[in-house]
Amino acid sequence: MKSRAAVAFGPGQPLKIVEVDVAPPKQGEVLIRMTHTGVCHTDAFTLSGEDPEGLFPAILGHEGAGIVVEVGEGVTSVQPGDHVIPLYTAECKECLFCKSGKTNLCTAVRATQGKGVMPDGTSRFSYEGQPIYHYMGCSTFSEYSVVAEVSVAKIHPDANPEQVCLLGCGITTGIGAVHNTAKVQAGDSVAVFGLGGIGLAVVQGAKQAQAGRIIVIDTNPDKFKLAKEFGATDFLNPKDYDQPIQQVIVEMTGWGVDHTFECIGNTQVMRAALESAHRGWGQSIIIGVAGSGQEISTRPFQLVTGRTWKGTAFGGVKGRSQLPKMVEDAMQGHIQLAPFVTHTMPLEQINDAFELMHGGQSIRTVIHY
Amino acid sequence: MKSRAAVAFGPGQPLKIVEVDVAPPKQGEVLIRMTHTGVCHTDAFTLSGEDPEGLFPAILGHEGAGIVVEVGEGVTSVQPGDHVIPLYTAECKECLFCKSGKTNLCTAVRATQGKGVMPDGTSRFSYEGQPIYHYMGCSTFSEYSVVAEVSVAKIHPDANPEQVCLLGCGITTGIGAVHNTAKVQAGDSVAVFGLGGIGLAVVQGAKQAQAGRIIVIDTNPDKFKLAKEFGATDFLNPKDYDQPIQQVIVEMTGWGVDHTFECIGNTQVMRAALESAHRGWGQSIIIGVAGSGQEISTRPFQLVTGRTWKGTAFGGVKGRSQLPKMVEDAMQGHIQLAPFVTHTMPLEQINDAFELMHGGQSIRTVIHY
Repeated sequence: MKSRAAVAFGPGQPLKIVEVDVAPPKQGEVLIRMTHTGVCHTDAFTLSGEDPEGLFPAILGHEGAGIVVEVGEGVTSVQPGDHVIPLYTAECKECLFCKSGKTNLCTAVRATQGKGVMPDGTSRFSYEGQPIYHYMGCSTFSEYSVVAEVSVAKIHPDANPEQVCLLGCGITTGIGAVHNTAKVQAGDSVAVFGLGGIGLAVVQGAKQAQAGRIIVIDTNPDKFKLAKEFGATDFLNPKDYDQPIQQVIVEMTGWGVDHTFECIGNTQVMRAALESAHRGWGQSIIIGVAGSGQEISTRPFQLVTGRTWKGTAFGGVKGRSQLPKMVEDAMQGHIQLAPFVTHTMPLEQINDAFELMHGGQSIRTVIHY
Repeated sequence: MKSRAAVAFGPGQPLKIVEVDVAPPKQGEVLIRMTHTGVCHTDAFTLSGEDPEGLFPAILGHEGAGIVVEVGEGVTSVQPGDHVIPLYTAECKECLFCKSGKTNLCTAVRATQGKGVMPDGTSRFSYEGQPIYHYMGCSTFSEYSVVAEVSVAKIHPDANPEQVCLLGCGITTGIGAVHNTAKVQAGDSVAVFGLGGIGLAVVQGAKQAQAGRIIVIDTNPDKFKLAKEFGATDFLNPKDYDQPIQQVIVEMTGWGVDHTFECIGNTQVMRAALESAHRGWGQSIIIGVAGSGQEISTRPFQLVTGRTWKGTAFGGVKGRSQLPKMVEDAMQGHIQLAPFVTHTMPLEQINDAFELMHGGQSIRTVIHY
């Protein structure tokens, strides 16, 4: 079948809106008609060419919502008409990792997903007869996309897809990091470095967890207003201080913060976040994705005196088991999504969405098909 | 009073056995007659001059056992005749940290201890009228030493002091790291980097915790025999491999090890230990003390894919509450201490103990007063 898609033909080039061919779903695969997709920093990172694992030509996008159109042989967990969110973190419920009860990092489709193909090693996308790579197992920048059954979360049909598509990545990552990775408890202090979509979601998660002090750090003070609405209590712009920001935070809190979250992908900020954690028990969670080859560092003394350094992917959320509940939380107002959707536009304008993001003007732009 | 002591008069110089003056214990202080002391790498590190916080002249030593001789005003928890182990990690039971239930990093005497003095800011040691610094709140290289009451663990009077003095540092650190910091569970896999006293104690702790595979890594294969007796199952000498040892370990285990422990103080090994941890949930515990200014580093991807980086001091053990029980465990054979005591000698030969340690010939030399 034919599908409108925004194709990344090469690194650093604008996406091109073309009509691609989409092959039918094979065994264990699902064809989805996307109704909405967010545009995320990770898409921009890959498009820039700096992602060492980036492949071209590819159909990017991994933060979508849609409706099942057709299922391949053996698919039992969804059927045509189901409302779904595609998952870049699959959940097969059968691998060592899914069964461990300790992580959401399913390995079922990991190897092929990283190579931009479906589990059988081939692509369902082509353009003018040439194959086009899938991306993160989702490729939500195509109106029709084929994904593995293990990469599909079935959600409530009444959920607003323009909003809940954001639960496909950033918002879930931020909220999940608070509950699943850090396990913030009532009264704990929290520091959030970077107030993009993920950082603002961390603030929401911290408020849900009834955190005490919620300190937010950003070099763009325009971000503080929404953070305050979500529950942030202290606002720091590193540009206002001569000392390193970790020193400012340790001084203002006495011994540091119970839980700190890096939501940018900057390795220097990752260090600052760790070193802002409370002596004795503070922990720092890396959420942001750093550039290729970049490394984090600190003095081991920071860990020996009781700080813990962790990371999280998709907020530790198991997509098929847990995401449907988060969609319902959003429907009931326990997760606020509307404030994240600062812009909407049709697929044809998707390159403008990247520009808004790079300019710091948007939190999320949602594309309507 | 007079006391025989091995004094570090300057960095890099051999200790000098002299008779020092020891002032009586002041309020909240305890005078201990040391009967035994271990000689630990940390003493050597400070003596070398590489410890940026090292002060001279000082009476080193922090792994001792002795008997209370006299108590200062207000001391209630011990009395003359009590058998005790001095603690470099105090436990006041009143500070934010002691009350948190999350850490053993008491702050009661932290500031003055780091400055080589008692809580009132002065030293109880002098030689030819000049003050000599205390060390780690213990100074077990003096037959008579004054320590803070919060830095004294009262132990069973029938315990063998030649052995249980080692619970004042390395052995407790290793065993405690397994139970308190890593919380190893039955069947978990463990990797131990470095088979000095701490590493061998980690092996014992892992065996106590009924760990499954216990992989030990050392460039000196002579260490493997004792590790095997303590329960190690796999033995790796990094010199036998061309690849980085973390790659060897990940390949031999499939996805890495549940818990890894760095017991050397080498920042490159700290990285290897982290990168040997299991994808999804593995954790790495830094126990070794790195040289001044050295930093650890890794790719943040290691954490984002589920590894956790931690550290521990004194194995997370609260000295006054928990050490007496560990002494009893040793008396009942649940902790084996005898194999660690490879050499014993009188105070006068203490410089030989450092040489044995530097030559890798001893695990622990215990000094008899």
